[in-house]
Amino acid sequence: MAEETWIGGFHAIEAALDRHPERIREIAVSAGRDDRRVNRVRKLAANAGVKVSDRPDDWFARLTSDGRPLRHQGVAAKLALRPAGDESALADLLATAGEPPLLLVLDGVTDPHNLGACLRGAEAAGALAVIAPKDRACGLTPAARKTSAGSSERLPFIQVTNLARTLKDLKRQGVWIVGAAGGGPTSLYECDLAREPVALVMGAEGSGLRRLTSERCDQLIHIPMAPGVESLNVSVASAVCLFEFRRQRLGAS
Amino acid sequence: MAEETWIGGFHAIEAALDRHPERIREIAVSAGRDDRRVNRVRKLAANAGVKVSDRPDDWFARLTSDGRPLRHQGVAAKLALRPAGDESALADLLATAGEPPLLLVLDGVTDPHNLGACLRGAEAAGALAVIAPKDRACGLTPAARKTSAGSSERLPFIQVTNLARTLKDLKRQGVWIVGAAGGGPTSLYECDLAREPVALVMGAEGSGLRRLTSERCDQLIHIPMAPGVESLNVSVASAVCLFEFRRQRLGAS
Repeated sequence: MAEETWIGGFHAIEAALDRHPERIREIAVSAGRDDRRVNRVRKLAANAGVKVSDRPDDWFARLTSDGRPLRHQGVAAKLALRPAGDESALADLLATAGEPPLLLVLDGVTDPHNLGACLRGAEAAGALAVIAPKDRACGLTPAARKTSAGSSERLPFIQVTNLARTLKDLKRQGVWIVGAAGGGPTSLYECDLAREPVALVMGAEGSGLRRLTSERCDQLIHIPMAPGVESLNVSVASAVCLFEFRRQRLGAS
Repeated sequence: MAEETWIGGFHAIEAALDRHPERIREIAVSAGRDDRRVNRVRKLAANAGVKVSDRPDDWFARLTSDGRPLRHQGVAAKLALRPAGDESALADLLATAGEPPLLLVLDGVTDPHNLGACLRGAEAAGALAVIAPKDRACGLTPAARKTSAGSSERLPFIQVTNLARTLKDLKRQGVWIVGAAGGGPTSLYECDLAREPVALVMGAEGSGLRRLTSERCDQLIHIPMAPGVESLNVSVASAVCLFEFRRQRLGAS
């Protein structure tokens, strides 16, 4: 598994220097450049204690990202991939969340493309983090990172040892636990969750929520689908639910 | 490309005999069975002019669907895969639609998994059909059918020669054309489309709506995403929009 990746361009690198300088292994700039933008990157890097190397143009031409030539504008950074977080990272996130957080909990998603698509949709809907069990579930594999279209590097992904215990902890902290299950009694559109901290719990495709997970939920909901349709892909179902919560929040603000 | 598939079980076969008997090539029943359910299938098949063969159990044991053993309950049918429809099929659908139809139009989706996922989400959201151009777009490939999880066999997929002309025709028939484009001025949540016939037009990932398609739209909308997020997968974006229209319709009915 690739543990590092190259990113290119002034915007991306300034954002990385601002948000997570500790994940930047090195910065490369096109040899001989001495303009305002490059000098700004040099200065930000120096402040963050990141090494800057001058590299010739043919060196830059060999950089790739996902198998394609990297777009770089004469500046690139080698970035350590964002690792998954744990229970303490989740506690930190909740302690510093500015608004009622929206969390996505995946109970037993094993397909990396589904995980990646869930991360992408969750970030777009404004989720604070995605939570999944450490065992019998997919982690941040290269395929999951690729399908997430960059979300895996921005949105915290939390792997917990005991999902039922994490849900209990969240509940104790005032988070409303909503489980999406085919047979849930409440329609998604009858939930009013505009002002609540919410954790949306999605089951694996096919088998749905595990019993222990289901028992931890404050509310079980269903997406009102057209007659004769059994299920949605987990990433699509997650996004439909999370965007409905987002709609309620936007309306309430 | 596989043009036929085996389906199994009483429920699926009775539904097929009811909805599209013309696509059933043959029906097989477990040799020697003479109970009420089997006899009902025999009678329905005879009424529909479909041949029924008696087959031994080891013959049934060799049937597969998507590489797995077929679940059959002692009855199976060989089904011609649903072909794509054309402009005239679309006209027929619109003429017989019972409620204000919801259509999904895909402008240049080339990835079969995306097409399949779009079909699945569209069926779940209650769409009448999915429309796409014949050229420079993906058709009903085996991968698209598989990802659709059966929706390709139930939901009409219409391939049109000239998408701009089809949108013009739809508009003339009173269908409101809504284009989803990143920069659309109206938020999805500000649309009020509960009672209108609507066609939702989605662009290809990356390039968005083509100019000619965009000009045919009555309204351009955007999904209000969290800051810093650029885009959603086209199947996720389609489902989020279609389920918002479904929510409005459920509320209005």
